[in-house]
Amino acid sequence: MSTQNGTLSIFALGGVYEIGKNMYGIQYGDDIVLIDCGSKFPDESFLGIDLIIPDITYLLENRDKVRALIVTHGHEDHIGGIPYFLKQLNVPVYGTRLTLGLIEIKLKEHGLLQQAELVQIDRNSRIALGAMTASFFQTNHSIPDCLGVVFDTPEGKVVHTGDFKFDLTPVHKQTPDLHKMAAIGQSGVLVLLSESTNAERPGFTPSEKLVGDHLREAFARAKRKIFVSTFASNVYRLQQVIDAAHLNNRVLVLLGRSMVNVVRIAQEQGYLHIPEGMLVDTEEANELPPERVAILCTGSQGEPMAALARLSTGGFRSIKVEAGDTVILSASPIPGNERNVARIVDNLFILGAHVIYGSGTGMHVSGHGSQEELKLMLTLMKPKFFIPIHGEYRMLHQHRLLAEQLGMEPDAIFLINNGDVVDFKDGAAVQERTIQAGNTLVDGFGIGDVGTVILRDRKHLSEDGILVVVVTRDKTDGKIISGPDLISRGFVYGPDSEGLIDEATQIAAAALEGLQGERITQWNRLKQALRESIGRFLYAKTKRRPMILPIIMEV
Amino acid sequence: MSTQNGTLSIFALGGVYEIGKNMYGIQYGDDIVLIDCGSKFPDESFLGIDLIIPDITYLLENRDKVRALIVTHGHEDHIGGIPYFLKQLNVPVYGTRLTLGLIEIKLKEHGLLQQAELVQIDRNSRIALGAMTASFFQTNHSIPDCLGVVFDTPEGKVVHTGDFKFDLTPVHKQTPDLHKMAAIGQSGVLVLLSESTNAERPGFTPSEKLVGDHLREAFARAKRKIFVSTFASNVYRLQQVIDAAHLNNRVLVLLGRSMVNVVRIAQEQGYLHIPEGMLVDTEEANELPPERVAILCTGSQGEPMAALARLSTGGFRSIKVEAGDTVILSASPIPGNERNVARIVDNLFILGAHVIYGSGTGMHVSGHGSQEELKLMLTLMKPKFFIPIHGEYRMLHQHRLLAEQLGMEPDAIFLINNGDVVDFKDGAAVQERTIQAGNTLVDGFGIGDVGTVILRDRKHLSEDGILVVVVTRDKTDGKIISGPDLISRGFVYGPDSEGLIDEATQIAAAALEGLQGERITQWNRLKQALRESIGRFLYAKTKRRPMILPIIMEV
Repeated sequence: MSTQNGTLSIFALGGVYEIGKNMYGIQYGDDIVLIDCGSKFPDESFLGIDLIIPDITYLLENRDKVRALIVTHGHEDHIGGIPYFLKQLNVPVYGTRLTLGLIEIKLKEHGLLQQAELVQIDRNSRIALGAMTASFFQTNHSIPDCLGVVFDTPEGKVVHTGDFKFDLTPVHKQTPDLHKMAAIGQSGVLVLLSESTNAERPGFTPSEKLVGDHLREAFARAKRKIFVSTFASNVYRLQQVIDAAHLNNRVLVLLGRSMVNVVRIAQEQGYLHIPEGMLVDTEEANELPPERVAILCTGSQGEPMAALARLSTGGFRSIKVEAGDTVILSASPIPGNERNVARIVDNLFILGAHVIYGSGTGMHVSGHGSQEELKLMLTLMKPKFFIPIHGEYRMLHQHRLLAEQLGMEPDAIFLINNGDVVDFKDGAAVQERTIQAGNTLVDGFGIGDVGTVILRDRKHLSEDGILVVVVTRDKTDGKIISGPDLISRGFVYGPDSEGLIDEATQIAAAALEGLQGERITQWNRLKQALRESIGRFLYAKTKRRPMILPIIMEV
Repeated sequence: MSTQNGTLSIFALGGVYEIGKNMYGIQYGDDIVLIDCGSKFPDESFLGIDLIIPDITYLLENRDKVRALIVTHGHEDHIGGIPYFLKQLNVPVYGTRLTLGLIEIKLKEHGLLQQAELVQIDRNSRIALGAMTASFFQTNHSIPDCLGVVFDTPEGKVVHTGDFKFDLTPVHKQTPDLHKMAAIGQSGVLVLLSESTNAERPGFTPSEKLVGDHLREAFARAKRKIFVSTFASNVYRLQQVIDAAHLNNRVLVLLGRSMVNVVRIAQEQGYLHIPEGMLVDTEEANELPPERVAILCTGSQGEPMAALARLSTGGFRSIKVEAGDTVILSASPIPGNERNVARIVDNLFILGAHVIYGSGTGMHVSGHGSQEELKLMLTLMKPKFFIPIHGEYRMLHQHRLLAEQLGMEPDAIFLINNGDVVDFKDGAAVQERTIQAGNTLVDGFGIGDVGTVILRDRKHLSEDGILVVVVTRDKTDGKIISGPDLISRGFVYGPDSEGLIDEATQIAAAALEGLQGERITQWNRLKQALRESIGRFLYAKTKRRPMILPIIMEV
C-alpha cells in the first residue's frame, strides 16, 4: 500500500472470519496505529502447532510508519501475539494498568521486558499519534479496565469498541461510559468497528452479578471442599468466588500457574480484594476440615495439562477431589473444547463429586454483548459507515443484519476479511485493495517456518504412517548392494505384519531390478517407481496409503 | 465366564461410558443373546482410524452359545458393527423391516448378504432363544420401527428399551406401545436397561410434529431454491420435508449416497410417501425456476465429503447454492462436530444464502427422551434392578439420580462399564466379574491390527514429523562408507532449514565416529546414540521432537 495522503485506511490483520488473533490497523498517510495483537489456539487441522499469530509482513514493510500498538484489554486473543510482534517491531504499547500487567508477564517469559516501551493509559487519556489522536471510553467485559478507542482523524472519527457488553450492575462498579459514548455518537462518527462475538445470540447478556448469586447459593449448600474452575483473567468472577468463600468461612487455595499470576497482579493493583490470611497453600488446606476449604483453579476449557483435568484424574498430588466434594465449572466451553470438558465432568462424577456444569446452572455469563447490546452500541454511535469485527463470518453477517434492521444502508456496511482495506476519503468509502495477511504459525522456537508442506506431511503421517525404503547401490553400475530394506512407523506393527512387509520388499526389489543400471541422474525415476509399485500393492492389501519415502544410497 | 447354570448375566460390550457402538449381552446358562452391534466414529485421538467396533473376543470364545443378534433399530450406533461381527460369528439377526433393509445395504457392501440369516420381526413377534424368550414393544425415536425388547428368563423379566422418546403426536402414527409397557411393568420386571442419551436434559423432548410446522413456515417464505440437510435415516423428517415441498409445488432432488439409499428403501417398504413425478434429478431441477425446487441432502454433521459441505464451497457441480437460496440445517451438531458445521454455515452465508441453523429455530428435535420421559419409562416398568445404558458416564450418573428420585435404592442400580457383568440369581444381583471388552479399530481392511503402538507413533509423527538418519557401514570393520544422510518429513522444510540439517548431520557423524568399530550386534547402541544426540540438538535448536529413525545398512 503506497502512502495515500488524504486517505484514511482501515484494515484487519486478524480477528475477522475467525475468533482470535485480533489485530486491526488504521492508517492516515504516513501514520499507522494498531489496535490489539492477539493470538489464537490452533484447531486440530494445524497438527503440532503451538500458537497462531497475525502475519505482520505489511507492517514490517512499513515499519517507519507504525506509531503505536493500542491494546484494548488483557485477553489472549488481544495480547497473545505481542511478544512475537515486539521482537520484530518495537513500538510503544498503550494499555490500562491491568492490561499492561498481563502483557508484562508475557514479555518477561520472552525476555523482552527491558526493551519494551509500555505506556499506561486510562479512560481519560489522549494520545497524539501523528495525524491522529486517540481517546478512550470504558466498556465492560469479563476482565477489568477494557477500553473502546476513538481516533480523531482528518477524515473523521473512527470508533473501535474493543470487546464489550452493557452490564448495568457490574461487579466493582466498572460501569460502561454510556454518557461518553452518547457524546461521541452525537459529535459524529465516520466509521464504527464493533465486535460481533455474540451477534448470533438474541436478547441482552445477563449481568455478572447473577453468577455471584448462584455461587453464594452453591457455597451455602456444599458440605465439603468446593472447587471452582474459571478463566483466571475474569477478575470479577474470582472476586465473587472469594466473597462467597469468605462468607462461608472458607480458606482459598489457588491452583494453576495463570491463576496464581493473575491473582497476584490483580491483588497488587487493587482489582482483587482477598481478606488477610484467607489464601493458603494445599498443605495448610489439607489440615483443615473439608468444609473450610475452597479452591480456585484453571482448566475450565478442559485443557489436558491444566489443574482441573489433572484433578479429575487424581493426577494432582497435593490436593484431591474426593467423594462429596463440589466442583463448579464457571465457564462455557469454547467451540471445539466440548469433548474435553465433558470427559472431565465424567471423571469428576466417577470420583464421586457433585459437579455443577452446563448452560442451565447460572454459573457463567458471557462477557460479550448480545444482539440488543450490539444494537445499543450502533444506536449510540450512529456511524456513517460500519465494519463488524471480531467474529467468524456468520457472526459478522448477523451483525450486519442488525445494522440493517437499524436502518443502515447495505452499502454503508463493509464485511472485511483479514487483509482487506477500506479507504475513506471525503466522506466516501471503498473496499478494493488488499494487503498481505494470514496465519503465522508458531511451532516451538519456529515462527512462520511451518507452512503448508509440513502440515500436509504431518496430516499424511498422522493418518497412515510412513514406510521408509532404503537401498544401497553401486555408484558405477547401479547394482544393488544392499536392500531394499523396508521400515515402517504408524502403519503396521507386530508379527502379523511381517508377511505384508516381506511381500512389499519383493515388490520393491522387482521394481529396482527393472531399473537396474539407471544412472544417478535417474534417482527421481527410481524413487517414483518404488513409490508407485509399493503404494499400489499396499493399498490393494490394506486400503491404507502410508507415506512412502525411498532413500537410495550410492557407494 | 464359565457356564453358570441358574444364573442370569447381563453385560455390555459397547455403549456405556461412551456414545456409540452399542452392544449388550444377556446370558443364561449356555444361551447368549445379543442386542445391537453398533459402531462409532473415532474422535481425533484415533488418528487415521475409520471406525470403532466392539471387541467381541468373549463371544468368539463362547461361539457355540450365541443364539441370536436382536437389533432394536437401524441407526449406525446399533447396526454399524454388524458386517464385521457376522464375518466372525454368523448367527441369525432379528430386526423390523426397515432395520433389516438398512442392514442389507451394509451387508451388500461387504459381500455378506447371501450368507447372512436375517429374520424379520415386528412388535408382536415372540422368539424362543434357548432358555429365554424375546418379545417386543414399539417405541418412537428418530427412525421408524424401533423396538424395546422383553426377555423372559428363568430368573425373571429383562427389559431393554432400545432408543426411545415418548412422542404422543408422532408422524406416521407410530405411537409408543404405552399400554403394553404398562402391562409388562405390571407383570413384574427383574431388571431394566434404559437408554441415557438425554439424561442431562430436563423436561420432555418436543414432538417431531413441531419440526413440520417450522418447515412449512420456512417453505412458505422462501423465494428461491430450498436445501434441507438432515440425517438420511430420519424418515419422519424426510416425510415432513417432502410434504412441505409438495404443498409449495416444489420438485425434490436427493443429494448424497445415504439419502438416495434410505429414500429408496423407505419408499419401497411404504414408510415414505413421495407423490408421483416429484423426484427429479439435478438436470431437470436446474431447468425449473428456483422457486419450484427443493433439495434434501446429507452432511448435516459437517462431514467434509458429504453433500452439504461440498455445496457450501461450490464443490457440487450439478447443482449450486446461489444468493437468495434458503438452506435449512435440520439437525443438531453431535458434540465434536460443532466446528465443521459452523464452517459450513459461514461458507453458505458467503454464497449469499439465507441459512436457518442453530438450536433456536425449531428445525430439529431430539429423538431421545428427556428426564421426564426417562422417569416415565422407569415408572412404567418399575423394575427391581436398573442398569442405565447408552451414554457417557455423566449421563448414566444423571439417569441413576433420576431413578433414586423415583425411590429406587442406590444398591439396586448398577453403573456398568463395557466388560462389567451383573449376575442375577434368586432375585439378588451382584457385579463382581468382568469379561474382555474394548475398542476394535478398523483402518482400511485392517480390523483390530492398529493398536497403541501405531496410534502412539501416528501422534508423534503428527506433531513433529520424522527425521530419518541413514548410514552405510562396512560390515567387517564398521567403517562408515556413506552417510549419515538426514531426510525429514513434517519437521522442517525449505532452504531456511538447510543449515539446521547440516549441523544435525555433523552431530550424527560425530556420534557415529565415537562408536566406530562397534559390532553388528551393537546396532541398538548405535541407534540409541544417534537418537539421543540428534534429538538433544534439535530440541535445543527448535523446541521440537521429531521422531528420529536411524537406519544402518551394512555392506
